Amino acid sequence: MKKVAVNLQEFLRTRKETIEHHLPIYVKQLNAPPILKESMLYSLEAGGKRLRPILVLALLHAYGKNEEQGLPIGCAVEMIHTYSLIHDDLPCMDDDDLRRGKPTNHKVFGEAAAVLAGDGLLTEAFRVIATLDMVSAEKRIALIKELSAAIGAEGMVGGQVADMEAEGKKVTPAELEAIHAMKTAKLLSFSIVAGAILSDAPNVEIERLRQFGFHIGIAFQIRDDILDLEGSEDKIGKRIGSDTANEKTTYPSMLTLTGAKEKLNDHIQSAKGLLYELSLEKELLTELCELIGNRDH
Amino acid sequence: MKKVAVNLQEFLRTRKETIEHHLPIYVKQLNAPPILKESMLYSLEAGGKRLRPILVLALLHAYGKNEEQGLPIGCAVEMIHTYSLIHDDLPCMDDDDLRRGKPTNHKVFGEAAAVLAGDGLLTEAFRVIATLDMVSAEKRIALIKELSAAIGAEGMVGGQVADMEAEGKKVTPAELEAIHAMKTAKLLSFSIVAGAILSDAPNVEIERLRQFGFHIGIAFQIRDDILDLEGSEDKIGKRIGSDTANEKTTYPSMLTLTGAKEKLNDHIQSAKGLLYELSLEKELLTELCELIGNRDH
Repeated sequence: MKKVAVNLQEFLRTRKETIEHHLPIYVKQLNAPPILKESMLYSLEAGGKRLRPILVLALLHAYGKNEEQGLPIGCAVEMIHTYSLIHDDLPCMDDDDLRRGKPTNHKVFGEAAAVLAGDGLLTEAFRVIATLDMVSAEKRIALIKELSAAIGAEGMVGGQVADMEAEGKKVTPAELEAIHAMKTAKLLSFSIVAGAILSDAPNVEIERLRQFGFHIGIAFQIRDDILDLEGSEDKIGKRIGSDTANEKTTYPSMLTLTGAKEKLNDHIQSAKGLLYELSLEKELLTELCELIGNRDH
Repeated sequence: MKKVAVNLQEFLRTRKETIEHHLPIYVKQLNAPPILKESMLYSLEAGGKRLRPILVLALLHAYGKNEEQGLPIGCAVEMIHTYSLIHDDLPCMDDDDLRRGKPTNHKVFGEAAAVLAGDGLLTEAFRVIATLDMVSAEKRIALIKELSAAIGAEGMVGGQVADMEAEGKKVTPAELEAIHAMKTAKLLSFSIVAGAILSDAPNVEIERLRQFGFHIGIAFQIRDDILDLEGSEDKIGKRIGSDTANEKTTYPSMLTLTGAKEKLNDHIQSAKGLLYELSLEKELLTELCELIGNRDH
């Protein structure tokens, strides 16, 4: 395995650029009503860290493979993430007017169009993977199995329902973790597993990386909860203190701020520990773990 | 090709029973929040003609193949159809309180749960196809390509947006046909194409069957428009005259009732004509065409 020294900030910046260049292509080429394409593109192009597609590319990079083959899958994951944000922001869900400092999709296009833009992005994401002709049918099926499990009733959608059900109820730490595992960690984990599948990683490494994804997914959520308490509104692009105002159970509300920071650190350490024994270049992924633990937006 | 005499009514009755027996299994076995499963099951089990899965089985039957391998795909198509009904009925879309004589999903479970039940059914439908281990990966990918094209921005979702856009506008016959081709015919056509793919039909026959599906899809929609004018509320399970009340452009409003009936007949004749030159048993599919032209619910 050749050791490629890479600067994390440089990696994040250049890959975000590449992803944002490719992301609109899949929507722009569709033979579909212009207003639908416009509303799908509006949310896809609203910015964001692009962490999920970056994770796909980071895995290919760490395995010393050509990152290019990860681009369509990365775009599909970002389409899924975007659909989930559009539906989450709806008046009947979180009723948010702003996302990343811009009006939410339904504020611009109306609720009906927002529901359909979400449905369209979800469906087209599966289509992007199914039509990836340079990847074998077996791998494409493996990817679609993983993705549908990660984002369906046992994953992201189920986590969203469990989260709604938990509102106003006393939740145990185990229940809170189960909610975030479904709602957030499974899709992050998919990005990592997808990168590993494309890299022809052995099954035992894929299963270890799935655990790695779980830990950074939960860490990501704990950091989100902490930023809602002590983050900068300018950097996050949304109002802070909303969890407290909504009486949401969060890691800090359950464990105190200090306790949440310890828990966050535990998950980051567990993630880093899982990287040993893998036949990949660890530097970039280790730095990514640390960033997820310390990020300010 | 052995000629199997089969009574259409008997075929419809027995296959509907088989499909309704299998349909809940995919949801019941999910490790997901009980309220989510309940709301997915509520709409899946709300009845209906089950025409889309029956078409999958009818194609396998017509090609003299084992119908059983079509059951999971049939269930997946019905999950997709059900998701589309749940989202269409939402207050921000058609705002319907009743569907097949029962309260709509959001009336029973609330809007947020209805959005998520739809998202869940859509995602799990792809999962059902991806995990069909007795079908080759190549065929599963072909099915997922076809399905995602039929129901995404170039298909059902796009048709729904185009339909909304057309409200209150003057629409040409060609525009009306394009809307219904996307909104209704592509999913019906998918059912037929899926049955043909599973039957190992030659490509030239698959393309002919895609046309067949287009014609019966448009015919299905014209018959729907006619039933809204002269159908029986008891048999349809919803109020008649709603298209007129909503000032919707329909085939009868555009072509007169007589003109719509002629157009319907043209599409049925075109569909039946396409069945010649196919290496399948035509009797059942011919009878199905006639039923779609004459159905009273």
